[in-house]
Amino acid sequence: MALLLCITQWDAARWLDRLRRLAPDRDIRAWPDVGDPAEITYAAVWKQPPGLLATFPNLRGIVSLGAGVDHVLADPALPPVPLGRVIDDSLTHRMSEWVVMHALMHLRNQAGYQALQRQRIWRELDPSPEARELRVGVMGLGVLGLDAVRKLALMGFDVAGWSRTPKQVDAIPCFAGEDLDRFLARTDLLVSLLPLTPATRGILDRSLFGKLARDGVFGAPILMNAGRGGLQVEADILAALDDGTLRAATLDVFESEPLPPESPLWLHPNVTISPHNSSISDEEAVGRFVLRQVERHERGLPFEAPVDIARQY
Amino acid sequence: MALLLCITQWDAARWLDRLRRLAPDRDIRAWPDVGDPAEITYAAVWKQPPGLLATFPNLRGIVSLGAGVDHVLADPALPPVPLGRVIDDSLTHRMSEWVVMHALMHLRNQAGYQALQRQRIWRELDPSPEARELRVGVMGLGVLGLDAVRKLALMGFDVAGWSRTPKQVDAIPCFAGEDLDRFLARTDLLVSLLPLTPATRGILDRSLFGKLARDGVFGAPILMNAGRGGLQVEADILAALDDGTLRAATLDVFESEPLPPESPLWLHPNVTISPHNSSISDEEAVGRFVLRQVERHERGLPFEAPVDIARQY
Repeated sequence: MALLLCITQWDAARWLDRLRRLAPDRDIRAWPDVGDPAEITYAAVWKQPPGLLATFPNLRGIVSLGAGVDHVLADPALPPVPLGRVIDDSLTHRMSEWVVMHALMHLRNQAGYQALQRQRIWRELDPSPEARELRVGVMGLGVLGLDAVRKLALMGFDVAGWSRTPKQVDAIPCFAGEDLDRFLARTDLLVSLLPLTPATRGILDRSLFGKLARDGVFGAPILMNAGRGGLQVEADILAALDDGTLRAATLDVFESEPLPPESPLWLHPNVTISPHNSSISDEEAVGRFVLRQVERHERGLPFEAPVDIARQY
Repeated sequence: MALLLCITQWDAARWLDRLRRLAPDRDIRAWPDVGDPAEITYAAVWKQPPGLLATFPNLRGIVSLGAGVDHVLADPALPPVPLGRVIDDSLTHRMSEWVVMHALMHLRNQAGYQALQRQRIWRELDPSPEARELRVGVMGLGVLGLDAVRKLALMGFDVAGWSRTPKQVDAIPCFAGEDLDRFLARTDLLVSLLPLTPATRGILDRSLFGKLARDGVFGAPILMNAGRGGLQVEADILAALDDGTLRAATLDVFESEPLPPESPLWLHPNVTISPHNSSISDEEAVGRFVLRQVERHERGLPFEAPVDIARQY
């Protein structure tokens, strides 16, 4: 009965240390120091090596250390055991901080004023619209999307949401499924918080950008993506910025991470980049959550945030 | 019975045009085309020339075109008639946009990530604290301060307020009067939205900076001022930034505006500048408000936002 941490690309030792302090009586191991594979009953994973989980004959459940599970499902030999993901207030609140901050920076032309400051120029640029004049559309209404939609609305933005399946969020207009085009047609600033699935891969492409509103206060729409890099087609983003289909883009995720130094996105004047840190996992909170999932499952309860393998999120 | 616009430093012709379209049947004039001074019964003013208003023997009321009235009260020959100021949702909401945006930019080290982007460096800087870990203190709990405090709290910041007279704002801790030092001692990020009065002139000085919290997540406190430039001592801000008493400053207002090109604030690495546009008067909304004040007063009603001349705000 051991819990195995399978972490690549993050600092596994720090996570192991944290989990062991939170549950000193539990047998917790970190890949590649697996020990006897038959003793592994649960795995907490971040981008586990493909095929690894299939080598544990007594595995009973898997917990993703992030809100997204595309990194887990990318494993072609994923064992057919329950999969859970993390829902954590800290993760959620930090994502909304990023979304609201960057939406406000677009609204208030913060990049323009920073350029003036560097030149020591005191000047009022075109008066900024008020938040209620900017139609913000959030794609993806999971836990992160719901919190972002609510906070954007509280800040005064004219917010709507879109999700695959119909959702109700207070008094906020929510579109679903086939209604995507109507949602895009009323969106001046698009915020993508979608999960990466076969249905969403590459969805942020030239065709979609062409359906966004062009009759808004800024004339051309703005793209923000903090979901996954696989959602976006970066060549299309660059072309759309250059031909005016898009006014600006704020990107936290990329097709390839780290974003290669040679990417023209880095120095494009209308692109703002953050290094996939829109939301970060708080090790203490996530550690507690993971341990609680294992305890629940051992007592016969389902994970708190089970993943529907068929839908892939 | 004429309404006189006394505007300097703004585009008076645009305001005159707007007011005349809103009230085509009213006699509206713009200084210096006053006509017969005895016909002026109301004045709507922005930095009127000192002594001008005293030349209208039948003046019955004055309305400031901004939320602040220090520019009106600076007139040593101000006639003893009722003075009102503007309260406008648009003015209020825009100020909160500025406050929340810049607070989030400090929280998330946006300046640091922008510097990395310019160098095409993909790196996670020190993990940002969550909003609830940053103690934000708002000085000034008038209409603008109350909205800012509420929105900062909704975004998760650990907010408190201070005002000259005691106020109650939902569940937010509010300090008053003599309790200023206790308020400063729990403040990591200070937001000044104070009116400029003889009691507040120069209040943002070295002595005050030294009383701010130094035991917070960032170690040293941050100053944001969107009240009036006369509140701050810029030499003290620069010295405090350079000796580490302050971590950073975001300033929308200055001792002298426009900020002179030779000011070292412009290019200081820890200073963010905006050109007194944290909130802007929407001419349509403010025009309607001013006309409503005149109509109210003509019917014997008080102004909606009367100024207490003794308190100077």
